[in-house]
Amino acid sequence: MKEIKVGLIRVVTTTNEKVLNAHASLLTSRFKNLDIETKCIPNQPEGIHDAETEKIAVPKIINLAKDFESKGADVVFISCAADPGVEECRRLLNIPVIGAGSACAIMAQSLGNKVGVLGITEEAPEVMVKILKEKFVCSIKPEGVNTTLDLFKEEGRANALKAAGMLKEKGCDTIALACTGMSTINVHEDIRENIKIRVIDPVLAAGVIMSYLQF
Amino acid sequence: MKEIKVGLIRVVTTTNEKVLNAHASLLTSRFKNLDIETKCIPNQPEGIHDAETEKIAVPKIINLAKDFESKGADVVFISCAADPGVEECRRLLNIPVIGAGSACAIMAQSLGNKVGVLGITEEAPEVMVKILKEKFVCSIKPEGVNTTLDLFKEEGRANALKAAGMLKEKGCDTIALACTGMSTINVHEDIRENIKIRVIDPVLAAGVIMSYLQF
Repeated sequence: MKEIKVGLIRVVTTTNEKVLNAHASLLTSRFKNLDIETKCIPNQPEGIHDAETEKIAVPKIINLAKDFESKGADVVFISCAADPGVEECRRLLNIPVIGAGSACAIMAQSLGNKVGVLGITEEAPEVMVKILKEKFVCSIKPEGVNTTLDLFKEEGRANALKAAGMLKEKGCDTIALACTGMSTINVHEDIRENIKIRVIDPVLAAGVIMSYLQF
Repeated sequence: MKEIKVGLIRVVTTTNEKVLNAHASLLTSRFKNLDIETKCIPNQPEGIHDAETEKIAVPKIINLAKDFESKGADVVFISCAADPGVEECRRLLNIPVIGAGSACAIMAQSLGNKVGVLGITEEAPEVMVKILKEKFVCSIKPEGVNTTLDLFKEEGRANALKAAGMLKEKGCDTIALACTGMSTINVHEDIRENIKIRVIDPVLAAGVIMSYLQF
């Protein structure tokens, strides 16, 4: 099986190796042909959670992406559901650039008909709504969850499950997770098993798309 | 690994088992967790190659799709780049319905920036152009290839390669194949190796998207 070299960009600053490599670990446990190196942007310990934190992150993301390309990556994966810097990097790089938000929305609209978005911001990421078009039903944010860090608390996980239940009640047949912190805590399995609904995890969706590169 | 039951619909009528199962064989050789049953629509030995042949195929496709769902399929795959009946089936079925054209276009726009469409009709399939949006550069049809059957001739394959070369010359960085007959003859590998360009095969693209269902 052809090996695919992935440059993975985390948009939250951390020196904790386990947290840093959480998305790479999730991907390599499912996709045997991905060879992943992870880097995180500097000086954003709370990650991206609004327009301002997104804006200051983009130049840092572009730097990391260029660096990955120059070192021989086959693909760059920006592991954030807002797709920060994805369009900019696509204009500058020759290798494919995957964003977690667009990957998640693409998979959700391929597999579902009525998609609810579960994220950590009041509004669903623009890139996801744009892809989902008429399949987008509504978005919801778990109570008390405002940054990716809030998801690591027991209450954050419980409230994410509650919010997923509300999306099902609103008639959604599929939930698209709009924060890769939800991938870090692997909440998609909890939701699928407890709420009995199809859930698209943004990191796994990106993994599936990147896996095409083996052909 | 979770097994996924796929109902695969061929939109060309054939009693030749090898031809009938060509797309299932291609998929199962790459995706170990797909358990595929194939059926073909009746009375269309030349398949779908224009608006009229598409129109008469749709009710037959819907019948097969409903049948697959009632027999316990996890997903229906309509293996034609025009996505015939995909929208109709999505409205009628509760399981996901994948079309080869939309799957191919989705993968091409995820991995490429300037996409050329190589098909067997004068115009690229509408569903593909709609998904590719501003990434769509142009479409081209190999000389002398008018139905999926023409691709089985040596001249058809050679002209498909020539056409791929023209798309590269026009500045495309990615080619999306717009006929699943091209998957049957496995021409994507020839194009990739000879023309040195990224190629998206519609059947493999659908396989990648369906593989998400293992999670």
